[in-house]
Amino acid sequence: MDFCTWMETMQHRTEENLERRLPSAGIAPQRLHQAMRYVTLGGGKRIRPLLCFAAGDLTAADPVRLDSAAVAVELIHVYSLVHDDLPCMDDDVLRRGKPTCHVEFDEATALLVGDALQSLAFQVLAEALPGADAQRQLEMLRILAQASGSRGMAGGQAIDLAAVGQSLSLTELEFMHIHKTGALIRAAVLLGAHCGEPLSPAALSRLDHFAKTAGLLFQVVDDILDSEADTATLGKTAGKDAAQNKPTYVNLLGITQAKEKAAELRAIAHAALEPFGKSARRLDELTNYIVDRRF
Amino acid sequence: MDFCTWMETMQHRTEENLERRLPSAGIAPQRLHQAMRYVTLGGGKRIRPLLCFAAGDLTAADPVRLDSAAVAVELIHVYSLVHDDLPCMDDDVLRRGKPTCHVEFDEATALLVGDALQSLAFQVLAEALPGADAQRQLEMLRILAQASGSRGMAGGQAIDLAAVGQSLSLTELEFMHIHKTGALIRAAVLLGAHCGEPLSPAALSRLDHFAKTAGLLFQVVDDILDSEADTATLGKTAGKDAAQNKPTYVNLLGITQAKEKAAELRAIAHAALEPFGKSARRLDELTNYIVDRRF
Repeated sequence: MDFCTWMETMQHRTEENLERRLPSAGIAPQRLHQAMRYVTLGGGKRIRPLLCFAAGDLTAADPVRLDSAAVAVELIHVYSLVHDDLPCMDDDVLRRGKPTCHVEFDEATALLVGDALQSLAFQVLAEALPGADAQRQLEMLRILAQASGSRGMAGGQAIDLAAVGQSLSLTELEFMHIHKTGALIRAAVLLGAHCGEPLSPAALSRLDHFAKTAGLLFQVVDDILDSEADTATLGKTAGKDAAQNKPTYVNLLGITQAKEKAAELRAIAHAALEPFGKSARRLDELTNYIVDRRF
Repeated sequence: MDFCTWMETMQHRTEENLERRLPSAGIAPQRLHQAMRYVTLGGGKRIRPLLCFAAGDLTAADPVRLDSAAVAVELIHVYSLVHDDLPCMDDDVLRRGKPTCHVEFDEATALLVGDALQSLAFQVLAEALPGADAQRQLEMLRILAQASGSRGMAGGQAIDLAAVGQSLSLTELEFMHIHKTGALIRAAVLLGAHCGEPLSPAALSRLDHFAKTAGLLFQVVDDILDSEADTATLGKTAGKDAAQNKPTYVNLLGITQAKEKAAELRAIAHAALEPFGKSARRLDELTNYIVDRRF
């Protein structure tokens, strides 16, 4: 199967799984469930689920377990977007080409939507799976919780807030992104691999190196897109980072050097995957997609 | 050990465990970690941890597992308070006798504090425990996630929001509280029991009946206290529900009937515990404490 067909198949599968896991809009409290479905369904590139599925190829992962892991990591991602868009955070009105949750519903609902999506992520990942090793499932829960918390994604948001209007060094900028975006992307890769046969410590460490690099790469490209693309293409407000005086790779390095940085990280990512041979094909392709995407 | 000494011992133990589980204030992002500690430590009756420890007596529960469960359930409770106090929700300035998180820090930090405390709760509950049955640990994670999510506590908050200014029937009011406060109190009891020997289905169902009753009882008494006590005693803004035109047991039933309702629920709770004999002593005492407390 070519990459594009694979990607669409996996995106479709993720959408179906999310649809199935979210409470139906007819169940009380209806408005909350409507809003949870509004923010989660019908949009998004599903990069994290794709990474999860692709990493599963390395370990001949069980498809049912992969589905749970992919849904859980995407639910955490969606909750973070909903909270990040709130007026007290980035105060954004557009996300995935639609009005943000607090605009379409209201602030309190958006707050609760994020809270409930986070709970649901852990509920899904803790679900009883026939034949699954419960110890490894607990390990996966720990990976996701750590990646989401104060020393992962939520911590990254806090560093991001503190950085508005500050001039950061490249090291400080990377520290922020390793938490804000990198932690969950890394978790997506590790969770995918954990759905199959255990990797050797050396292989796991290589995969982790890839995952960290991919997370950073994703953010560098995001900064480049934010500075070059328009709002209609992105489906979210373009040029927002510059307008909010946020430090980005582009304003720190300039656009040319930022692109060089992306090329360099892409090479590191591919190199980390090389020892995995053919089983890393999808991860290789996804790495290219992350760099070459237009939104 | 008399009840009061037991309670103080368990509160102290919970405080120590929370202190140990929270990232130290010196770890980056410092401000976030400071705020997480500010809202979690040094206050609170720790009713949910107490219920957890008391329920552990029924099953000769392992103390280390009980500590994890008690911390996890309290972290969920604290996160819900922080988010509930935000301007877009109850907009409150006082909690546990101190300025609320968004007042002491800022709104964005309060949002992230709640988010990160929720992640930490699941992280703690997923931690590897020597000798613990991983399947039962997963079951506990499911109980906590369900109790926290859109069909539990977060859902209850949404119902509460929708109810402001509405006149609810007693059934509707109970439906709200079963979710908003009841779900987590129920989870606290069940988690405590799950830390020991498995209960028979009949015993588990009795305990569940107790837990649901205790949750409702807690809320009825809360409404009575809110209408009768002053702000200094409560450590949170008194008379807030009436001021916000929120439906309560007191304004639905009147104070006399609300107190009768509390007495009735107390009797039901004690009756549900009776078959457990002496092992239910702490749960019996806690039930009385919930009714007789002054704040």
